[in-house]
Amino acid sequence: MTGSLPMTIREDGLPERVTIYEVGPRDGLQNESTIVPLDVKAELVSRLVAAGLPIVEATSFVHPRWVPQLADAANLVTRLDLDGPTPLPVLVPNERGLDRAIDAGCRHIAVFASATEAFAAKNLNSGLESQFAMFEPTIRRAIDAGMDVRGYVSMCFGDPWEGPVAPEQVVRVGTRLLSLGVSQLSLGDTIGVGTVGHVGSLVDAFTGAGVGVERLAMHFHDTYGQALANTHAALRRGITTFDASAGGLGGCPYAKSATGNLATEDLVWMLDGLGIEHGVDLDALVSTSVWMADLLGRTSPSAVVRALGQSGD
Amino acid sequence: MTGSLPMTIREDGLPERVTIYEVGPRDGLQNESTIVPLDVKAELVSRLVAAGLPIVEATSFVHPRWVPQLADAANLVTRLDLDGPTPLPVLVPNERGLDRAIDAGCRHIAVFASATEAFAAKNLNSGLESQFAMFEPTIRRAIDAGMDVRGYVSMCFGDPWEGPVAPEQVVRVGTRLLSLGVSQLSLGDTIGVGTVGHVGSLVDAFTGAGVGVERLAMHFHDTYGQALANTHAALRRGITTFDASAGGLGGCPYAKSATGNLATEDLVWMLDGLGIEHGVDLDALVSTSVWMADLLGRTSPSAVVRALGQSGD
Repeated sequence: MTGSLPMTIREDGLPERVTIYEVGPRDGLQNESTIVPLDVKAELVSRLVAAGLPIVEATSFVHPRWVPQLADAANLVTRLDLDGPTPLPVLVPNERGLDRAIDAGCRHIAVFASATEAFAAKNLNSGLESQFAMFEPTIRRAIDAGMDVRGYVSMCFGDPWEGPVAPEQVVRVGTRLLSLGVSQLSLGDTIGVGTVGHVGSLVDAFTGAGVGVERLAMHFHDTYGQALANTHAALRRGITTFDASAGGLGGCPYAKSATGNLATEDLVWMLDGLGIEHGVDLDALVSTSVWMADLLGRTSPSAVVRALGQSGD
Repeated sequence: MTGSLPMTIREDGLPERVTIYEVGPRDGLQNESTIVPLDVKAELVSRLVAAGLPIVEATSFVHPRWVPQLADAANLVTRLDLDGPTPLPVLVPNERGLDRAIDAGCRHIAVFASATEAFAAKNLNSGLESQFAMFEPTIRRAIDAGMDVRGYVSMCFGDPWEGPVAPEQVVRVGTRLLSLGVSQLSLGDTIGVGTVGHVGSLVDAFTGAGVGVERLAMHFHDTYGQALANTHAALRRGITTFDASAGGLGGCPYAKSATGNLATEDLVWMLDGLGIEHGVDLDALVSTSVWMADLLGRTSPSAVVRALGQSGD
């Protein structure tokens, strides 16, 4: 229908290739209230891999009490090809989660830190300082077990209790995580309040502290509609890894606040327009997201999925 | 709730101030299927003016057969302060529309051209060349009557029949309109397919042809989620006028394709984050958009309205 659209016109100074780090099965689903059956989750991961996503975060070994949606994490990973060419990381909140990930044969994990004192207290039930005491043995043991460890830093642009968060604060947390051995930082705008100038400033703060852009990923939420503009700002700073959620899983267009991740399809559309390689088959991805939206009983919050998708209804 | 968010961090090389050209009452409502009563339209325009929008396109003198929603254009403008400090332009499709606008005492009009042959045939029922024959007397007579005339150019990035549209094609149409006397061109991504590199390329094509950025406005639709990223790209080229629709009027979050304009609130959030002046009171705007969304019986497609708005329901 759209034929050869978008038209590809490059912009000087942008990367030639980016890595889309797909977070739909974990960050997306954990924010969906409809419990998704195990079979569907396994199919979702395999369809995302088949669509060309180069890395797919599959689930979280968080305690089932906190995230009932992901209570089947151990069962799910037995269904996945953990030794295949596409890394399938799992989130582990602590050493107990790490033990479960090791038992399950996972090779890639991620830990989830807070940039702010308030969110560390609320989400991690610890202080900003004590989160590192929790992560230190987790990361060390994971590395000893031959795992790759990614470090999420949440609330990098603002948080609901403290308001704006200074880039220097984020750099302090991020560099501590790097010093503990994480291979990559994912800088999260957890409540979606960041804007383009702030993004540039945060990346500059990291590079100014000696952290190369190749160690950084950006993780935008679209709460205030800024996610893709912010992605553009980060591309201009040389960032080459972007977290996104297929079909905008985790957000809801009906809700007063659609707090979901940047939709993978909307990111792919922009990258296609810029001629930036990503390796993802947009048609396969859109049909996967339409299938998931139908299962969840609602329209996808992704603009591209709504524009291109042929829903079953 | 969000306190002093977004945090303001400037970006080098961007304008210090922009003009938001509000199109909700015209371009937004004409795409809403629920017929809005005259009283509500009059209140909408006055609330937008009160919220600080510096220019509000009020309606269209299109034939009622084509846009029943705006059939009350002549009655509406009698309710508005056409001689007040805030310009309230009306769209006129042709000389007949101009006559109605003159009779009603309008001082600012806009004409609507196509960048492509196919859309000129479909929408204007004329060829690309013959649209100028239609506009020439319309624009000349409007100027003679002391009116200011804006020229919309639609399908500037792609159209549903021809696919991609080359910037040079848009420049040919735009410069013809300028030569007929329009004061400003509004370059529309009518089907929302443009991406950031394409935006830069189009602006460059105009400046390369001797058209200054002060003569250009950008008019983005969010069909593929690109509107705000494209706005950022245009800001970087020095564009200082942006069309937007309060609450994303004209788009619908339920629809398979939410083809609405960029939401004014989402634009304001980005400008606030960048410290770019715009003169709009975001709270007053959000409450106006919540009021309209309630009247239309649905959630606003604007992310900022969903995040900040307190709906009556």
